[in-house]
Amino acid sequence: KELSLAPTEEWFDRAKMEDLIKRRFFYDQSFAIYGGITGQFDFGPMGCALKSNMIQLWRKYFILQEQMLEVDCSILTPEPVLKASGHVERFADLMTKDVKSGECFRLDHLIKAHLEKIKSEKNTKPELKAEIEDILVKLDGMTADDMSSLMKRFNMKSPVSGNDLSPPIEFNLMFNTQIGPSGLVKGFLRPETAQGIFVNFKRLLEFNQGRLPFAAAQIGNSFRNEISPRSGLLRVREFTMCEIEHFCDTKDHPKFDSVKDTQMLFYSADNQEQGKAAEIMTIGEAVSKGIVNNETLGYFMARIHLYMLAVGIEPKKLRFRQHMSNEMAHYACDCWDAECLSSYGWIECVGCADRSAYDLTQHTKATGTRLAAEKKLPAPKQIDVVEAVTNKAAIGKQFKKDAKAINDALLALGSSELEQLESKLESCGEYTLVTANGDFTLTSDLISVKKTQKTVHVEEIIPSVIEPSFGIGRILYCILEHNFKLREGDEQRTYFSLPPSVAPMKCAVLPLSGNAEFQPFVRELSQELTAVDVSHKVDDSSGSIGRRYARTDELGVPYAVTVDFDTVPEPHTVTLRERDGMGQVRLLLSDVPQVVRDLSNSKISWSNVEEKYPKFEQQETVKGVAA
Amino acid sequence: KELSLAPTEEWFDRAKMEDLIKRRFFYDQSFAIYGGITGQFDFGPMGCALKSNMIQLWRKYFILQEQMLEVDCSILTPEPVLKASGHVERFADLMTKDVKSGECFRLDHLIKAHLEKIKSEKNTKPELKAEIEDILVKLDGMTADDMSSLMKRFNMKSPVSGNDLSPPIEFNLMFNTQIGPSGLVKGFLRPETAQGIFVNFKRLLEFNQGRLPFAAAQIGNSFRNEISPRSGLLRVREFTMCEIEHFCDTKDHPKFDSVKDTQMLFYSADNQEQGKAAEIMTIGEAVSKGIVNNETLGYFMARIHLYMLAVGIEPKKLRFRQHMSNEMAHYACDCWDAECLSSYGWIECVGCADRSAYDLTQHTKATGTRLAAEKKLPAPKQIDVVEAVTNKAAIGKQFKKDAKAINDALLALGSSELEQLESKLESCGEYTLVTANGDFTLTSDLISVKKTQKTVHVEEIIPSVIEPSFGIGRILYCILEHNFKLREGDEQRTYFSLPPSVAPMKCAVLPLSGNAEFQPFVRELSQELTAVDVSHKVDDSSGSIGRRYARTDELGVPYAVTVDFDTVPEPHTVTLRERDGMGQVRLLLSDVPQVVRDLSNSKISWSNVEEKYPKFEQQETVKGVAA
Repeated sequence: KELSLAPTEEWFDRAKMEDLIKRRFFYDQSFAIYGGITGQFDFGPMGCALKSNMIQLWRKYFILQEQMLEVDCSILTPEPVLKASGHVERFADLMTKDVKSGECFRLDHLIKAHLEKIKSEKNTKPELKAEIEDILVKLDGMTADDMSSLMKRFNMKSPVSGNDLSPPIEFNLMFNTQIGPSGLVKGFLRPETAQGIFVNFKRLLEFNQGRLPFAAAQIGNSFRNEISPRSGLLRVREFTMCEIEHFCDTKDHPKFDSVKDTQMLFYSADNQEQGKAAEIMTIGEAVSKGIVNNETLGYFMARIHLYMLAVGIEPKKLRFRQHMSNEMAHYACDCWDAECLSSYGWIECVGCADRSAYDLTQHTKATGTRLAAEKKLPAPKQIDVVEAVTNKAAIGKQFKKDAKAINDALLALGSSELEQLESKLESCGEYTLVTANGDFTLTSDLISVKKTQKTVHVEEIIPSVIEPSFGIGRILYCILEHNFKLREGDEQRTYFSLPPSVAPMKCAVLPLSGNAEFQPFVRELSQELTAVDVSHKVDDSSGSIGRRYARTDELGVPYAVTVDFDTVPEPHTVTLRERDGMGQVRLLLSDVPQVVRDLSNSKISWSNVEEKYPKFEQQETVKGVAA
Repeated sequence: KELSLAPTEEWFDRAKMEDLIKRRFFYDQSFAIYGGITGQFDFGPMGCALKSNMIQLWRKYFILQEQMLEVDCSILTPEPVLKASGHVERFADLMTKDVKSGECFRLDHLIKAHLEKIKSEKNTKPELKAEIEDILVKLDGMTADDMSSLMKRFNMKSPVSGNDLSPPIEFNLMFNTQIGPSGLVKGFLRPETAQGIFVNFKRLLEFNQGRLPFAAAQIGNSFRNEISPRSGLLRVREFTMCEIEHFCDTKDHPKFDSVKDTQMLFYSADNQEQGKAAEIMTIGEAVSKGIVNNETLGYFMARIHLYMLAVGIEPKKLRFRQHMSNEMAHYACDCWDAECLSSYGWIECVGCADRSAYDLTQHTKATGTRLAAEKKLPAPKQIDVVEAVTNKAAIGKQFKKDAKAINDALLALGSSELEQLESKLESCGEYTLVTANGDFTLTSDLISVKKTQKTVHVEEIIPSVIEPSFGIGRILYCILEHNFKLREGDEQRTYFSLPPSVAPMKCAVLPLSGNAEFQPFVRELSQELTAVDVSHKVDDSSGSIGRRYARTDELGVPYAVTVDFDTVPEPHTVTLRERDGMGQVRLLLSDVPQVVRDLSNSKISWSNVEEKYPKFEQQETVKGVAA
């Protein structure tokens, strides 16, 4: 039902697009000459340039425009950090093994495929079909026991061998290794970049001169040892993320007004639960109706929306889906995924979660380092202070080398523990203190509790965190799908209508033929384009001009300059062609670098160019696949 | 002797610089709140921006200007790839263990420290001192046995505990892990990015339409499990590299003329062996004298030199040192390191090696995929072709399911093996063929050998590889050292004189005070600077303007704009200050964004600005450490 909102493209042929991606080496399987590894991909020149342009634009949209603090943290992470974050215990998927061959399957995928097959069979009863549909909706929230029952009930076997399958096994998705030569320091490849920001919170807060709110951001690779990766770039073992952690004490946002009229497609938890469709409204409306929890979350959702459109995602194929209560982490107070519609269905490309103070609290507990900020109070406040008063000399004399551990433990006691200490001393005359060196009994001649009042001007707060987290590879894949086009009337001719800002190269330089007279002009153009930082490719290979246009179209290059016989005499002119409409104009060679640069930076549009320069009429006649 | 060429800076105080780096969070130890891990660093906002600007400039210098093919390959690498490259067998350092505590020491570092200590002792005899000096020079080329003898001879113990040490142990520096859930696929974190390019050679050659030469490049992280990392950023466990693999069939270079007059400091293998100093000459001279092996290698060395100066390396502290014969890999035909002088001595920052056809040959051997290019012959050539002619039907009938393996094995026979087959058939009437399914005896009714002549127009060649390999972290550290400055007459005031192109931020915006009238102008400036992509920081914290200038100086920010009372009335003007000379001019607020952008892109210089705008005279009087 939800899909009906999105336009279906009847002609889209994934195999055809994948052939182009492979043939022009946008990306391809890693280590293919060694048989390859599933879930790993190498980006070739065009994929790499597209990815790096997406990241540059991301830096501009978020780091530069929002003045975020960018960091670049270690990938190898020692175990205690990921214990505190919960990854060691909980970052796992359920799998099942073929009991004979040992082949592993991700359990939810296996169940889904099995049930979908039953559902599609002709003689399956309507009641069972309905029941299966219901199971499939609930699958994401199921426990190991639930899934185990399903396996038994539907008598599931290995889809490859038909052998029996093991009961569900929890498989942690982190890659582990040892750091250092002793083999004793266990480490993991980070499964997300966020933890690097949290453990640096104090340094970042200090860099920001102690003030909230601020946002830190990180661009880098993360690793997940997927059980059975598939769907190309959508589920891989290493991937580039761009993550933001916005630390704040209030959830209003000073720049919310600037985005409040942005129209977006919202698929709220309520609508999902009630079987309703997604709805278009402005982010201002969504926040004021309480559909989106707060302004800051809403601001980031709108900025994500705008970024996604800028890199070439089709507006109609972008929606924000709210997590349902059973999907959301217990500490999160709201979470929305930006999803893109692809031939694989709706794909989560960006997560945007309000994680409250969870992560900083966890790392504070694990390390004893208080990851908190001070906030100035509106007015000074009187507070009760409870503290232990010790007889240092007597403690030193009695406990000698343990005295330091005792003093440290006393300093670390919270106010409720101090209250307890006081009542124990009153009732029993002694208190048993737990320290790093063991337990010690302290008598009332060694210690007492003092209660005073103090005037404070600041309060300590653990800030909330809003976390927008971008999966660059997934966005890249969706951009390619949304921009894969066929030339009207020629189904063999395909191209990528990538926006100039992210297109792998901005311009092709094509001499009409191998005529030596053209070479100096080609060289000059290439030098002048380089001088203004316009990435380009000289294609002086043989092949008709039409065939070479088709080739640059396949690479998603938005503009092509052709040097021909009319270029040779003064005034030296060339043709400039635009990829999508294939329109051409004639202009001075010396004008080209500036014009292409301005087009690439979206300073001018192609219609500006067509207004300014005379049209160049020539039919493109080449049919068939580009050479 | 060599050091005498380089200026010594008496005042340089590493502790003072490291304090600034830590205090302003350029970078710091990773996971410090968890006790930290040696050899791992997190880059804070300033270090991260510096690093990312260095990489952007690298992309411009190499990828854009040389039209290289950038790729982005997997970090997790399956074992067979690194077996073929030699890393599984040989990528190891020698270490020794404290036999009681198990503590590990890198052996060459331990020996060096031990011998240097003896050398520095008062009562050490001059002959021993001379001998130790000789040992230290040869240490890099020593075997495990040589080092073991030294340990015994000098009775070396653990420098930490004084305990006995184990004999030398080879420790492989690659981090290992398992890929996939079975635990059976062994993988490593790549120790260099180069292998990702080599295994993609065929795809890249095809992308380049089969033509040589071409260069591929990759920017990414690599990992080495150092035994006992030290020296800050200079020896770390994960680091960013920028690597180029230039594939060529001839070693002349069409653009060599454009760099031939570049003056550089060369420390040839000959000079090192003969105890001579490094020499200044042009790269043209070095190549024509045969000091540098060929033009292509020389071209890249000159481009490396120019890049290093552009990012802020002091020309006098940059030299190119040639590998001596005992340092160089057996397959390499020449290798030069770009070294920077730092307080740790001369540091290898960029390697530039001519690796001949080694890597492609290794991967060809390991996979059977021919990583070779076709080169058009100057004239068609007649060649002898030897091939096996088989009776397919008879082979199929006799060997059934093994027939395919037999045909595959026959196809893979080289010409010398076919000659052998022919002579065996002649002499014995049969031939024993080794196949993947076992050995099979083929009789002459099943097979014969045909010799023909063929006209060929191309020959197959495995190209040579020139490999410039940049260690970004090491260059970054040297840039910081070379640009760490004291304000004359105020030793407490330090700053980084970073070139604007790599400076973490281009500009600070400072309201003279908290006066509300200044705020709209600060906001306008910030918006206009953002619009022209100029990274900047608004510092509206309290503190005198001088104190805030000192703070931006510490961050290496080259320009500061101050909004003051004269800004408020029309025409709105502000002051613009340059960091190094502390000169100030007064200009229209609306001129600022364009001027700062052009300064940052090196389109105009500060003296151009001083010529155009009136000087603004005001003494900076603040003394002492910046707040």
